Amino acid sequence: MDMNRVLAEVADEVAGHIGEGRVANYIPALASVDPRQFGIAVALPDGTSYGVGDWLTPFSMQSISKLFTLSLALASDNSVWSRVGREPSGSAFNSLVQLEYENGLPRNPFINAGALVVTDHLAGHVGDAADAVLQFLRTESGNAVIEFDQAVVESEASHSQRNLALAHFLASYGNLHGDPHNIVDQYIRHCAIAISCRDLALAGLFLACHGALRDGSQGPSARQTKRINAVMLTCGTYDAAGEFAYRVGLPGKSGVGGGILAICPGRCSIAVWGPGLDERGNSVAGVAALDAFTTKTGWSVF
Amino acid sequence: MDMNRVLAEVADEVAGHIGEGRVANYIPALASVDPRQFGIAVALPDGTSYGVGDWLTPFSMQSISKLFTLSLALASDNSVWSRVGREPSGSAFNSLVQLEYENGLPRNPFINAGALVVTDHLAGHVGDAADAVLQFLRTESGNAVIEFDQAVVESEASHSQRNLALAHFLASYGNLHGDPHNIVDQYIRHCAIAISCRDLALAGLFLACHGALRDGSQGPSARQTKRINAVMLTCGTYDAAGEFAYRVGLPGKSGVGGGILAICPGRCSIAVWGPGLDERGNSVAGVAALDAFTTKTGWSVF
Amino acid sequence: MDMNRVLAEVADEVAGHIGEGRVANYIPALASVDPRQFGIAVALPDGTSYGVGDWLTPFSMQSISKLFTLSLALASDNSVWSRVGREPSGSAFNSLVQLEYENGLPRNPFINAGALVVTDHLAGHVGDAADAVLQFLRTESGNAVIEFDQAVVESEASHSQRNLALAHFLASYGNLHGDPHNIVDQYIRHCAIAISCRDLALAGLFLACHGALRDGSQGPSARQTKRINAVMLTCGTYDAAGEFAYRVGLPGKSGVGGGILAICPGRCSIAVWGPGLDERGNSVAGVAALDAFTTKTGWSVF
Amino acid sequence: MDMNRVLAEVADEVAGHIGEGRVANYIPALASVDPRQFGIAVALPDGTSYGVGDWLTPFSMQSISKLFTLSLALASDNSVWSRVGREPSGSAFNSLVQLEYENGLPRNPFINAGALVVTDHLAGHVGDAADAVLQFLRTESGNAVIEFDQAVVESEASHSQRNLALAHFLASYGNLHGDPHNIVDQYIRHCAIAISCRDLALAGLFLACHGALRDGSQGPSARQTKRINAVMLTCGTYDAAGEFAYRVGLPGKSGVGGGILAICPGRCSIAVWGPGLDERGNSVAGVAALDAFTTKTGWSVF
Repeated sequence: MDMNRVLAEVADEVAGHIGEGRVANYIPALASVDPRQFGIAVALPDGTSYGVGDWLTPFSMQSISKLFTLSLALASDNSVWSRVGREPSGSAFNSLVQLEYENGLPRNPFINAGALVVTDHLAGHVGDAADAVLQFLRTESGNAVIEFDQAVVESEASHSQRNLALAHFLASYGNLHGDPHNIVDQYIRHCAIAISCRDLALAGLFLACHGALRDGSQGPSARQTKRINAVMLTCGTYDAAGEFAYRVGLPGKSGVGGGILAICPGRCSIAVWGPGLDERGNSVAGVAALDAFTTKTGWSVF
Repeated sequence: MDMNRVLAEVADEVAGHIGEGRVANYIPALASVDPRQFGIAVALPDGTSYGVGDWLTPFSMQSISKLFTLSLALASDNSVWSRVGREPSGSAFNSLVQLEYENGLPRNPFINAGALVVTDHLAGHVGDAADAVLQFLRTESGNAVIEFDQAVVESEASHSQRNLALAHFLASYGNLHGDPHNIVDQYIRHCAIAISCRDLALAGLFLACHGALRDGSQGPSARQTKRINAVMLTCGTYDAAGEFAYRVGLPGKSGVGGGILAICPGRCSIAVWGPGLDERGNSVAGVAALDAFTTKTGWSVF
Repeated sequence: MDMNRVLAEVADEVAGHIGEGRVANYIPALASVDPRQFGIAVALPDGTSYGVGDWLTPFSMQSISKLFTLSLALASDNSVWSRVGREPSGSAFNSLVQLEYENGLPRNPFINAGALVVTDHLAGHVGDAADAVLQFLRTESGNAVIEFDQAVVESEASHSQRNLALAHFLASYGNLHGDPHNIVDQYIRHCAIAISCRDLALAGLFLACHGALRDGSQGPSARQTKRINAVMLTCGTYDAAGEFAYRVGLPGKSGVGGGILAICPGRCSIAVWGPGLDERGNSVAGVAALDAFTTKTGWSVF
Repeated sequence: MDMNRVLAEVADEVAGHIGEGRVANYIPALASVDPRQFGIAVALPDGTSYGVGDWLTPFSMQSISKLFTLSLALASDNSVWSRVGREPSGSAFNSLVQLEYENGLPRNPFINAGALVVTDHLAGHVGDAADAVLQFLRTESGNAVIEFDQAVVESEASHSQRNLALAHFLASYGNLHGDPHNIVDQYIRHCAIAISCRDLALAGLFLACHGALRDGSQGPSARQTKRINAVMLTCGTYDAAGEFAYRVGLPGKSGVGGGILAICPGRCSIAVWGPGLDERGNSVAGVAALDAFTTKTGWSVF
C-alpha cells in the first residue's frame, strides 16, 4: 500500500470539512487556535512515518494524554484497575452523578474522574505524572523538544474548579491519595502538552505493536495493550464511542484540542488533527479523515 | 400554662428514650459524647427561659448553625434567594446529584451545598460568617462565653473533602465567590459552636417573635421570619421533614450533635438536646420531647 | 371576623391576577376552560359557607381528589403508609426516577405514583375508589348532583400512557394489586370530578375539624388528620411546597384544573379556583387569593 | 486451521467452568435448565459448521433475538435509527432513568427499551416481529423446526409488568406506535425462541459476511452490517461491554438463557451456550470459551 498516496487522497476528501465545527472555547488559549488547520500522520511498525497537511504543527493534546498516563500506569502493574473501571459511562464526560452512585470508583480511565485517579496512581509510582508522560512522548517520538504549552497550563489552571471538585470528591471516598490541588496541577500539565501528528503517531505506535517500545523493550504487556485498545474503542471518544466505532471502526482517543489518536492493531497508528469539534467534542475533520482512511485501506476491525 | 410543669412532664415521658439511637461517629470529637444526656429549654417572648435536665450543658450545634447564617444573611437583604432555592430536596442531604441537574443552584439553605452558599454570601457582607454567628448567639442569649469547640473544628477539618468538593463545584458554576477552602473553614467553624439548650432557645426566640431581637431592634423582617419558619418546616430535618411535621407540627432545625431548635410562632422557641440520632440524623429523644411538648400544649401548627 | 367582607377584599386584591398564567393544555377538555373565572369559598366549623365570584361554578378537581382518596384510605386504617411514604419528592411530580431508586415505594401520596398506590389501596377496601370519592364529596357538601365530567374522563383516558407506565412499574414491584388499567381508570375518574368552590370547601372541612364529618361521625382520626395536613403542607403543591408554605402559610392541595383546597386548622377550610396556572402548575389567582386571605386574617400557621 | 481441533481444545479448557455461575431464575421456565450443559459452534463463510458438546441442543435465545430484530429492521431501511440511539448505556440494562432524561429515545437497540422500539418498528413493516425473526432463523439455519418455547412465553408473560411499563412509557413519548401489550407480546415471543448453537451460528453468519444471506441475497447492507457489529461490541453484553471487548475482542450479543453469538468479521460466526451466568448476566462458560477461541486463533479485533 502506498501510504503517501492514501494520505493524499484522504486529505482531498476531507478538504471540504476543514473549518467545520467549533473550536473549544472554554479557555482562551484554545479558543484562539486557527480552525482552518488539518494534519494526518501514520506510523508503521518499522518506525517509518508519513503525513500530509499540518502534520508537523504542534497542537494541544488535551484528553489524548489520558491514554499515556494509563499506559504508563499499566507498564508498572495491573493495580490501577482496582481504582478505576473499564466500562462506558453513558453520560457526560465529567459528570459527578455516576461517581456518586458508584461510590467513588470512576467508570473508566477516560472520564475526567478516572483520569484524575490514573494520574494520582501514576504519581504514586513516578512522582510527577506530567513529567513522566512528557518524557515518554519525547523518547518514543524521538523529538526531545516536545513541551508543555504554558499558556494552556495557565488558562486551564484558572478554570479548574470542577476538576478540583472531582479531586476532593474522589479523596472523600479514599480514591485519591495525593493532594487534590497537586494532582489537578499534574493533570492540567499533561493535558497541556503540545505535540504534532507525526510525534503523536510515533508515540502511540506501541499500541499497534503489542506494547513494544521504540527501543525494543516492552511497555505494557501484550495483554494489557489489548485491554487499552478495547477501552479506547468503548470509551475513547466521550459520548460518541458507538458512532466512532461504526464510522471509523478502530480504537481511538480524542481530545478537545482537535486531535485523535487511532490504532489499527498490528498495522499502524494514526494521528489526525483539526481544531473544529462536533457537538460531542470530537474533531469533525479528524473523524472524517479516519473514516476515509479505513474505507480506503479496509483496515476497520469490523 | 405552668411551663416548669410542662417541661417536667415532657422529661418524664422522654426518660425511656434517653440513650436510644446512635451518636454521630463520623468524627471522633462527636463520637465521644456521652449518649445518656438530655436537656430541653423553652424561651418565651418576654425573654424568660425554662428548662430541665442538661439544659445548661453546651453541645455541638452542627447544622442548627445554618439557621443563623440564613437569618443573618436575610437581615441585610433578600439577595441570598437569588443564589439558593427554598424547596425540599427529597434526597440525601449532601448529594451532588441534584446540584448538577440544577446547574449549581442548591435547592434550599439547609442542604450542605446551600449552607455553603449562604456562608459565602454572609461572608461577603460581614467578612467572617462564623464570627458573625458567634457574636449573634452571644448577644441574643446574653451569654458572652459561648465559643467554638476547637476539637470539633479540627476533627471536621480533617474530614472535609466532600465539603471542599461541594465548594469547588459551586465555584465552577460561579455560585461561590470566596476561596473554597476559606468558606469551608468558616462553615466548619460555625457548625462547631458549642451552645446550651438555654442559650439556643434564647438565641432563636426572634423567630417566634416576627424577627424582633433581644434589644428590640429588628433582625430579619416579619415577612422574612415567616419565610425562614416555612423553610424550616419543609427542609429543616434532613429527609424527615414530612415525618417531623406530622409528629411535632412545628418548624424545626436539627443537627447531628443531637440538638433541635423548634419554633412555635408567636408563643415560644424550644431547644432540645439528646446525642442519640435516628437513622435520618435527628435526635431520638429530641423528637420525642417535641412530640410530647406539642401534645401537652396543643401548640402544633396543624 | 366578617367573612363576607374578608372575601370581598380578597377578591378585590386578586382582580388584577385573574386571567394570568396558562390554562392546563395537555388535554383538550381542560384547555378549553375560560381563563377569566375566579371563585373563593370558606367553610366554617359550624357548617356555614361563604363565597364570592364564581364560587358556585363546578371545575375539574384533578389532583385535589388525591387528598380525598388518602383521607378515605386512612379512615379505614393506617395500612396505606406501608405502601407510600410521607416525604417531599424534590422532583417533577410524575418522575419515574425516584420510584426506581426507592424500589417502587412512592415518596408521598400526592405524586402520581403515590396517588395510584392510594387509589389501588382504597379500591381494595371499597371496590371503586372513584365512586367512593364521589359519594363522600356529595355527602359532605350536601350536594347530590356532583358528577364526573365525562369529557375530561375521555380526554384523560386518551392521554394515559405515562400513568399506565407508572401503574405497570408499581406492579412490577408488587406495589399495585389491582389490574393496572382498571386502577388508572379509577384514578382518571376521581380526578375528573367537577366540583364548585363551595362544595369543595364543605367537603374538606373535616380536615380543619380534627376529622369530624358533617354528620358528627369521625372520618380519619384526629391524629391522622394532623398527618394529612402535614403532608399537604410539605407535598401538596407539586415542586412549590416551600414557596406555598411561605406565601400562604397553610396546608394546601392544588390541581391543574386551577383549584386549591387550603386548611386553616381549627378555623376553616378554603377553596379557591382560577384556571390560569404558574409554571409549577398552581393557580396564579388562587395562590394570590390565599396569600391575601392569610395576610388579612393573620391565620397563617407561621 | 483445523476448526474441529480448535473447538475440541476450547472445550477442554472450558471444562472446569461448566456449571459455574447462576442460571437465570426470574422465571421458572429458565430456572429449571440443567446448568451442566455446554456447547459451541462455528460457521464459516462457505456455510460449513463445526461444533462440540451440546451444540445441537436448543436453548432460549432471550436477548440474542434483539440482534435479529435489529438486522431485519435495517434490512428495510435506516429509519429505525431515528427512534433509537447507538451509544452504550452505562447503567442497568432495563433502567427507566436514562429513558426519562433522554425524552423517550433509548440509548441503544439492546437495552430493553431500545429492543421494544425496534420490535415496534419491525412490526410496522412486517406485522408480527416474532414471526419474522422465527422465519429468518429457520431460513438462514436451514432448520425448519425452530420454534417458540411456549413454556418460556407463558412464564415471561406472567412477569411482564416492567416491560409493559417501559412500553407505555415509550408510548407516552410517541416512540411506540403499536399497542403496548401487543408489542410486549411480540417481544416476549421472539426472546422465547429455542435454538441450538449450530443454528444460531448459521443464522448469524451474514454479520461476518458483510450482510450476505444464505441464498446470496443481501440482508442489511455492508455498511449497516458494520454498524451492527460496532453496536454489538459497544453495547452487546449488558454492563460488561468493556470487559468483553478486552477478554474476547469480538462483537458479541449475549442472552440470559446463557447463549452468546460472536462475530469475527470476514472469518466466522461463533455461538456458545452455557446456562450459568456471571453477575452481569453473561454466560461464564460462554465468555471463557470465546476468550480461549480468540486466544487460540488470534482472531481478536484488537
